[in-house]
Amino acid sequence: MPVFVTFLTDFGLQDDFVGTCHGVMKQIAPDVEIIDVTHGIRPGAVLQGALVLANALPYMPAGVHLAVVDPGVGGTRRALALRDAEGRFHVGPDNGLLLPAADRFGGVVQAHELASPEYSLQPVSRTFHGRDLFSPAAAHLAAGVAIDALGPPIDPEELVRLDLPEADVGKSRIRATVLGVDRFGNAALNLVRRDLDEVGIVPGTRVELSSRGDRYYAVAARTFGDASPGDLILYEDSYRKIAVAVSRGSAAELLRVEEGSELLIQVDAL
Amino acid sequence: MPVFVTFLTDFGLQDDFVGTCHGVMKQIAPDVEIIDVTHGIRPGAVLQGALVLANALPYMPAGVHLAVVDPGVGGTRRALALRDAEGRFHVGPDNGLLLPAADRFGGVVQAHELASPEYSLQPVSRTFHGRDLFSPAAAHLAAGVAIDALGPPIDPEELVRLDLPEADVGKSRIRATVLGVDRFGNAALNLVRRDLDEVGIVPGTRVELSSRGDRYYAVAARTFGDASPGDLILYEDSYRKIAVAVSRGSAAELLRVEEGSELLIQVDAL
Amino acid sequence: MPVFVTFLTDFGLQDDFVGTCHGVMKQIAPDVEIIDVTHGIRPGAVLQGALVLANALPYMPAGVHLAVVDPGVGGTRRALALRDAEGRFHVGPDNGLLLPAADRFGGVVQAHELASPEYSLQPVSRTFHGRDLFSPAAAHLAAGVAIDALGPPIDPEELVRLDLPEADVGKSRIRATVLGVDRFGNAALNLVRRDLDEVGIVPGTRVELSSRGDRYYAVAARTFGDASPGDLILYEDSYRKIAVAVSRGSAAELLRVEEGSELLIQVDAL
Repeated sequence: MPVFVTFLTDFGLQDDFVGTCHGVMKQIAPDVEIIDVTHGIRPGAVLQGALVLANALPYMPAGVHLAVVDPGVGGTRRALALRDAEGRFHVGPDNGLLLPAADRFGGVVQAHELASPEYSLQPVSRTFHGRDLFSPAAAHLAAGVAIDALGPPIDPEELVRLDLPEADVGKSRIRATVLGVDRFGNAALNLVRRDLDEVGIVPGTRVELSSRGDRYYAVAARTFGDASPGDLILYEDSYRKIAVAVSRGSAAELLRVEEGSELLIQVDAL
Repeated sequence: MPVFVTFLTDFGLQDDFVGTCHGVMKQIAPDVEIIDVTHGIRPGAVLQGALVLANALPYMPAGVHLAVVDPGVGGTRRALALRDAEGRFHVGPDNGLLLPAADRFGGVVQAHELASPEYSLQPVSRTFHGRDLFSPAAAHLAAGVAIDALGPPIDPEELVRLDLPEADVGKSRIRATVLGVDRFGNAALNLVRRDLDEVGIVPGTRVELSSRGDRYYAVAARTFGDASPGDLILYEDSYRKIAVAVSRGSAAELLRVEEGSELLIQVDAL
Repeated sequence: MPVFVTFLTDFGLQDDFVGTCHGVMKQIAPDVEIIDVTHGIRPGAVLQGALVLANALPYMPAGVHLAVVDPGVGGTRRALALRDAEGRFHVGPDNGLLLPAADRFGGVVQAHELASPEYSLQPVSRTFHGRDLFSPAAAHLAAGVAIDALGPPIDPEELVRLDLPEADVGKSRIRATVLGVDRFGNAALNLVRRDLDEVGIVPGTRVELSSRGDRYYAVAARTFGDASPGDLILYEDSYRKIAVAVSRGSAAELLRVEEGSELLIQVDAL
């Protein structure tokens, strides 16, 4: 059975950044198998990266989970290797990126700062730690190097955590935030099914959405198939987040929302 | 020799959809080798997906051919595993996507509906069958599960087939449809060399193209090298379709055509 | 230890071109492992491809280095297999693409034209040599075929070489060219640290940049962390080229530069 490294970044695929990191890992651990989770995180969008990583890792085989969305590269943020309660490893910057995913596996039980020069590419550049610091650490872990050889321990309680935007769920309406928009224009919200239950929204309920001062009518539905082309629907997406979609269209374009936009949801009174 | 799964979708690479499907397959069949044919099919463009798949599969090693372009996900369309006359497997939705490719290998000889819960991720979501239904089925087939274990048989005659656009080849002119436009702006048509022969167009013939009411002059050529930069040429592309190109430019931009556009071709009378 | 083929093109990932080449190589050499360096080179941009390749290959494991940026496909340019002084192989068109990278490994010591029909896909199309000529040659080399079996030898001195743009380094100012712009909007210049030293620019020096007739103020810095968000900085990038960046912004957008643009740099007199 191969040893797996999963790999998520905001590097995109237009440049050689991702390929170069693959090369670095394969030089260190030729038999490791790399699974690219995605490299399409918006440049510097740590929260988006953290959420996508937390969604995807439960579908990945155990191994080393490398993630780099790192607007603070070259500054004072620490570089990390973590071990979670299920024995998976996580490698990346100490900016909150890794923790929502590690929490899916029982949370961090061991944390080390990447500080040992023998497990990095020397000299480490000031702007490409993905290549010089994180990829070598991930490959060495995959090749069997012990996590505590990578650098001094850190108290897991002291790791940087992100503030996740919280929804405001009232008696009859919800103020939610768009967590992300996918290729199909579906907008995932910071809501789960229980939140809709609280305001009485169930499949079939007609709801009113307010975005940027404009109002739209939608229906709560189980799937795209329950709506006519062009209809707005509110549904539980495949990662169990509540999302807004337009059957065979783009909800994000229609509502003019993007990551971070606010959306007001209320039961349609009529 | 590794077991291969080839993988084509309209998922794009911006989100984690493709990576997550890789993860699912690797958890089920760690030694399978995945070849990404492309994930750049336009969202929901079943015909484009079917044509690209049919072009590409003859260059792929035998194995399991997974393809997901599935605007009807969550509706009533069936999920399929097929076996073709050469023993290759095809997995995807029953919307016509798989058949032009299977026809390249002698056509479908066995078809089953994906219905056995033990070969899917339970509970199967209503919106991401790529992850929960198709990827598991492909991985289980690659790992040696028999196709008839995946679900009840279907009569191959009852599978959904696409209507391929047909060209209208007259005495001196041809009404053709653009099948697709590639990164280089080359526009492939629903024509083969024989169609040009019928109206007397051979390498060197000057032709007139009409697109959106405007006329353009082109020359039939064997390759880009036969034309000056900026010249429009009509040529047989590497998949043996007739295509329109501009040497070192974009024919699609010049002619303002996209997939589905109509193009009128006639021998230049002058 | 697997045998590696690295792969760089201008094919993009929207079409099946890259996937089809993977399929061709895997049919010939099923156990070869392919590392995609990038397929995001601008269509036809041979110089950009050559520079990215030369930057990336030192991070890649030894093996066969396949690269295709080939605006002259179907014309008279030759198809090449090269061996460098360190024993790595390079496969691609004779348009200068391969040489800056081969020079990183001591230069070309053996060159052959790809001419043996048994090591290509017959009939070779006139427009897709990546699939029919270059991928098969790379796979056969990876599988152990001797380079001189691929075709007749060529004198390495007769290979086509690119003219790299040269900077004009004066007493107090530098006229530089943008070599490329990455996803983060950072613009790499045809300068190294020594060039800045010559005009007295060291970390902390304030400099004036002129682009398209407009002036901007920047500071020479070691890393993004030394600047405030929005500040222009001049720094040595991770490939040891001098580059211009905006901390948490796009320098290329701000300065309105792209590959090939000219930039004037001088010490700020104030």
